[in-house]
Amino acid sequence: MGDAYLIGAGQSPFGSFPDETYRSLFDTAFDRCLASVDGAVEPAQIEEAFVGTLGVGGRQIGLSGPAVTEHLGLHGVPTTRVENACASSGYSLRNAVATVRAGMADLVLAGGYEVMTDTSGDHTKWWLGVSGETEWERLSGTTFAGVYAQMASAHMAEYGTTTEDLSRVAVKNHANGAQNPDAHLGFECSLEDAMNAPSVADPLNLYHCCPTTDGASAVLVASEAVARDLSDEPIRIAGVGAASGRVGLFQRPSLTSIPATRTAAERAYEEAGVSPEHLDFAEVHDCFAIAELLAYEDLGFCAPGEAGTLLREGRTDPDGDLPVNTSGGLKSKGHPIGATGTGQVVEAFKQFRGTAAVQTDDPQYGLAHNVGGSGGGVTVHVFERASEVGS
Amino acid sequence: MGDAYLIGAGQSPFGSFPDETYRSLFDTAFDRCLASVDGAVEPAQIEEAFVGTLGVGGRQIGLSGPAVTEHLGLHGVPTTRVENACASSGYSLRNAVATVRAGMADLVLAGGYEVMTDTSGDHTKWWLGVSGETEWERLSGTTFAGVYAQMASAHMAEYGTTTEDLSRVAVKNHANGAQNPDAHLGFECSLEDAMNAPSVADPLNLYHCCPTTDGASAVLVASEAVARDLSDEPIRIAGVGAASGRVGLFQRPSLTSIPATRTAAERAYEEAGVSPEHLDFAEVHDCFAIAELLAYEDLGFCAPGEAGTLLREGRTDPDGDLPVNTSGGLKSKGHPIGATGTGQVVEAFKQFRGTAAVQTDDPQYGLAHNVGGSGGGVTVHVFERASEVGS
Repeated sequence: MGDAYLIGAGQSPFGSFPDETYRSLFDTAFDRCLASVDGAVEPAQIEEAFVGTLGVGGRQIGLSGPAVTEHLGLHGVPTTRVENACASSGYSLRNAVATVRAGMADLVLAGGYEVMTDTSGDHTKWWLGVSGETEWERLSGTTFAGVYAQMASAHMAEYGTTTEDLSRVAVKNHANGAQNPDAHLGFECSLEDAMNAPSVADPLNLYHCCPTTDGASAVLVASEAVARDLSDEPIRIAGVGAASGRVGLFQRPSLTSIPATRTAAERAYEEAGVSPEHLDFAEVHDCFAIAELLAYEDLGFCAPGEAGTLLREGRTDPDGDLPVNTSGGLKSKGHPIGATGTGQVVEAFKQFRGTAAVQTDDPQYGLAHNVGGSGGGVTVHVFERASEVGS
Repeated sequence: MGDAYLIGAGQSPFGSFPDETYRSLFDTAFDRCLASVDGAVEPAQIEEAFVGTLGVGGRQIGLSGPAVTEHLGLHGVPTTRVENACASSGYSLRNAVATVRAGMADLVLAGGYEVMTDTSGDHTKWWLGVSGETEWERLSGTTFAGVYAQMASAHMAEYGTTTEDLSRVAVKNHANGAQNPDAHLGFECSLEDAMNAPSVADPLNLYHCCPTTDGASAVLVASEAVARDLSDEPIRIAGVGAASGRVGLFQRPSLTSIPATRTAAERAYEEAGVSPEHLDFAEVHDCFAIAELLAYEDLGFCAPGEAGTLLREGRTDPDGDLPVNTSGGLKSKGHPIGATGTGQVVEAFKQFRGTAAVQTDDPQYGLAHNVGGSGGGVTVHVFERASEVGS
């Protein structure tokens, strides 16, 4: 089995774009992805594609993957649409890696898109509800913020996590996102603002929730043969972990941990031969502030219940031991559902290339963590700067 | 790269089942799939899953793959929901093969499901329209039958294909399906009935169109190591081809051929090292009668324009050179969108095991052909009876 390498990555700006379509957004992501390889890849070299989108509520419904790749001119390329709610493009990447490792293609496109801001507020609430469990969550009126609010309440009750801890997630991620020209909410927020925002689903307020966003992202996964030709700074996709979990929160033994994150992370660390202390940066799935805290614990950055402390001590700040969400995260960069997973990988690519707006110091290992729903599907990818391809 | 093997396959009955759910149907398919391996596989051995469904209009929407696999007890297993319209589970199988070939799993579940009969007629029309192109087909009022009717008209004009040719597809497939205990429309039809049915979208009448159906199907794909343990009659997945095509019919150079079928078939034949004359049976995508005729030509069973002759001469009958749709096909067995692709593979599995209701004579090679929409995504798989694993 040959290794798979990340050789290019790009995203559209994330935001609200009434004049764009899902295709024009994906075009921008693809163009930027090609530009990131300095024009060394022609679209005709791409042999397979995976496109992630939740994609309910309009536009192309069936065949929404090929509808995007035909627009790029990738005619004839096998294209799979992947839907795993908010982890759709994390799974796009996973399956692109499998295709390359299988020797079925030397160059594979993985990406995703979502257009979310062209619907009414009520429809958006419904729309996001579809990532929850249907019968006992969505149809009984639980919003998606409500699902994470239950996790936040449980974490507060069990570990003494505070509203200030939640708010500090927003402060850190907005400070990072304010430097990111592609961020949806690219402005700083004060702790006071984040503490006193209107309630959305108690204990979560507006600053504890990510926005609904339009956007697209695309990355290129290559075999050793192609990566060797294209890059003298190869990024190896060293660890590929994924897991499913109970779709409904009520079916899980605990509300203070997402088991699928734990399982996916164990698999990714084992395959990469690393542990959390080797990581130099991480992009984690902060759809709600509590989700970032849960991620710290489930990904092994700290012990259960210690996430608030890790954050307060500044250890996940850009100058900390393990900078988290230097892109701004879902909170500030934005969360266009299907685009989020490979959008995180765009940030990882920039970190290794030294072109991130909030740049870490010469990273060797980085991680991307993408959660579908409240944990029904998770991917964790560990990336490694390799001295040469095949090394 | 190790080879991938088909070691088990099962489907629920296809039909209209108001008392079943998508989960209970998939349970049945899974149970039958396990039974087909004579109880030699425990669910806990399954390491990854792919679930195909178009899945719009109700039930679980986001994470509809994990929603099914959790119900089977496959907790923690990475599950990808695949959506490529009517080729959803053909692509499930493709990605399962990639995962096994990549060495990322030794045993992978690929399947799909659809529940379609719980909606009104109007809604079903809309529902099927979503597999067409959105702006210039669906939103301008073209039904899905209307899309294939255009292809039928073009084939009639270009090659002199007749209503009798279309009707003979129905007669053959209903004769086969009448033997299949899992068929939705498991009755014979006369040529006279098939000629004189009410018009749906001229020139297609009711007998030229498949039904809307509830059902599920599931197959098991294994590595060489697992296949060697489990079977002394290994079925090698010898050729795996797929392609995308223009989603909208109006963007294609011809209406009398589906380019994605041609490309996918070339790739599958080349990988398997066979040509159409090696095949002993084929399950082809006959969503409409014209689609089976197009498949004959695009899969290379005959020259362009010769499909009607091939059929009239009985060469695709069960006792012909190349029996096609011994299961009854989509026309008689039924077409529960997401379940169709791996449903075809269930028939292939039975043919190799000698347990098909309409059994071919000691087949060596078989083919399954699954079309998404009117050709926006296609998979072609060639299966081979191997004397031993790795041979």
